Amino acid sequence: MSNPAISYAHITRVTDTLATATQDALAAEEPLEIRLVHNNQQESITVTMRSPGQDAELAAGFLFTEGIITRYDAIQSIVYNDNIATVTLQAGIRPSLQAAQRNFLANSSCGVCGKTELDAIYAPVNKNTSDIKIPAGILHDLPAKLRMQQAVFDNTGGLHAAALFNTGGKLFHLREDIGRHNAVDKLIGAAWQQGLSFGEFGLLLSGRAGFELIQKAAVAGIPLIAAVGAPSSMAVKVAKEWDIALIGFLREGRFNIYHGEERIEL
Amino acid sequence: MSNPAISYAHITRVTDTLATATQDALAAEEPLEIRLVHNNQQESITVTMRSPGQDAELAAGFLFTEGIITRYDAIQSIVYNDNIATVTLQAGIRPSLQAAQRNFLANSSCGVCGKTELDAIYAPVNKNTSDIKIPAGILHDLPAKLRMQQAVFDNTGGLHAAALFNTGGKLFHLREDIGRHNAVDKLIGAAWQQGLSFGEFGLLLSGRAGFELIQKAAVAGIPLIAAVGAPSSMAVKVAKEWDIALIGFLREGRFNIYHGEERIEL
Repeated sequence: MSNPAISYAHITRVTDTLATATQDALAAEEPLEIRLVHNNQQESITVTMRSPGQDAELAAGFLFTEGIITRYDAIQSIVYNDNIATVTLQAGIRPSLQAAQRNFLANSSCGVCGKTELDAIYAPVNKNTSDIKIPAGILHDLPAKLRMQQAVFDNTGGLHAAALFNTGGKLFHLREDIGRHNAVDKLIGAAWQQGLSFGEFGLLLSGRAGFELIQKAAVAGIPLIAAVGAPSSMAVKVAKEWDIALIGFLREGRFNIYHGEERIEL
Repeated sequence: MSNPAISYAHITRVTDTLATATQDALAAEEPLEIRLVHNNQQESITVTMRSPGQDAELAAGFLFTEGIITRYDAIQSIVYNDNIATVTLQAGIRPSLQAAQRNFLANSSCGVCGKTELDAIYAPVNKNTSDIKIPAGILHDLPAKLRMQQAVFDNTGGLHAAALFNTGGKLFHLREDIGRHNAVDKLIGAAWQQGLSFGEFGLLLSGRAGFELIQKAAVAGIPLIAAVGAPSSMAVKVAKEWDIALIGFLREGRFNIYHGEERIEL
């Protein structure tokens, strides 16, 4: 009832030229600032527009998928207050803030830059070596399962969803957010906290699969991505480079395999 | 034929459990770095994942809608080469790089920050005072016009579109991009270059209307936004604050007015 990801507004609904005053459910959107405290320093890492809720998971997931920290036990505490999530690291842990800069290439006065900024968008990722194999039938059933479990989308029409699924087709940690990258970060943050072994799961996306999402999944070690929407050219390129199975247009008994047929059982 | 926004890949299409090798059109996605040269300095302003093409418009539109420069004639030249757009300003022009930082709150070591970072997301925008009035019938017809003119989406399923429209329902400067904010920046960049008076146009969006898009339109001076998808709570909030008419769920003879009924003629 008081889902923080939904907000209400008085609106005018127009059908043809007939206007009716009514109330409408909106996807809530608010900025979250993620701060990192380490070695007696505090730094503001990013501000992201997100659906409120599960903010500790979002902060943890972001720090992980952006390569800033690599182990959950590096985190001493996450305190959320008033749209600010403050993540304090254990003493002695050194975050990889160069990794953070990948996302935030601004402000970098660069004199004669060369191609540094463009190259910096790629995270250092190893090829995925998982031997996971998912039956086609399991894949066909995923979109219906996802929609059944999507809570906020039906009310607001405004949210992206992401979930992990296992070889039996069970969904885990479904998360919704107004930003598709935030949905993935919340999901990965939740699974990471529980110590899930990412190599045994696929990532299901309700929308399109762009570069950024493939990279986040790759950093986490997820071997297969199935998107209801279309992948981009860059998504396909890095999926091949990092050997991540990539499925797109997953709907109504059909899908396209863009890479990694050996992980699909037909 | 050689549209840079489309790329091709060999894929496997699976229907039920039947696999067929085929070719698929993908939405091309590549990074664009925007550099600014002013007063004998060169700075890297941002890197954005975008659909290749119309990159000078994107760079100009970005600098405008982010409040970094306010007049098109401040630009001496825009040179595009290999995913880098270098914008050189006229001698003596001082860009508002503080405005640029709004987008890129990272890297900012902030000691004890207060709420500086969160407040910094808002651009300084004046209330829109345009007396534009759009008939409901014109609005009803927009989605069909948009889809008819969308070139890349039909091929790839992967693109967002944005266009300006006048009180007669004519579309101008339709732009498509893999990133919805880039589509808006390309559109506004193109219209800005031609000296269009933004107060006389509405902005049509193929998808959802989030905070970021409303803010870009607001900086440009656009008085009305009509989105095929849902608006977010923050979009509605700032539309009210800046007095921008905001229409959502524009489809099949229906729409919702979230703010600004006086600009709609029923």
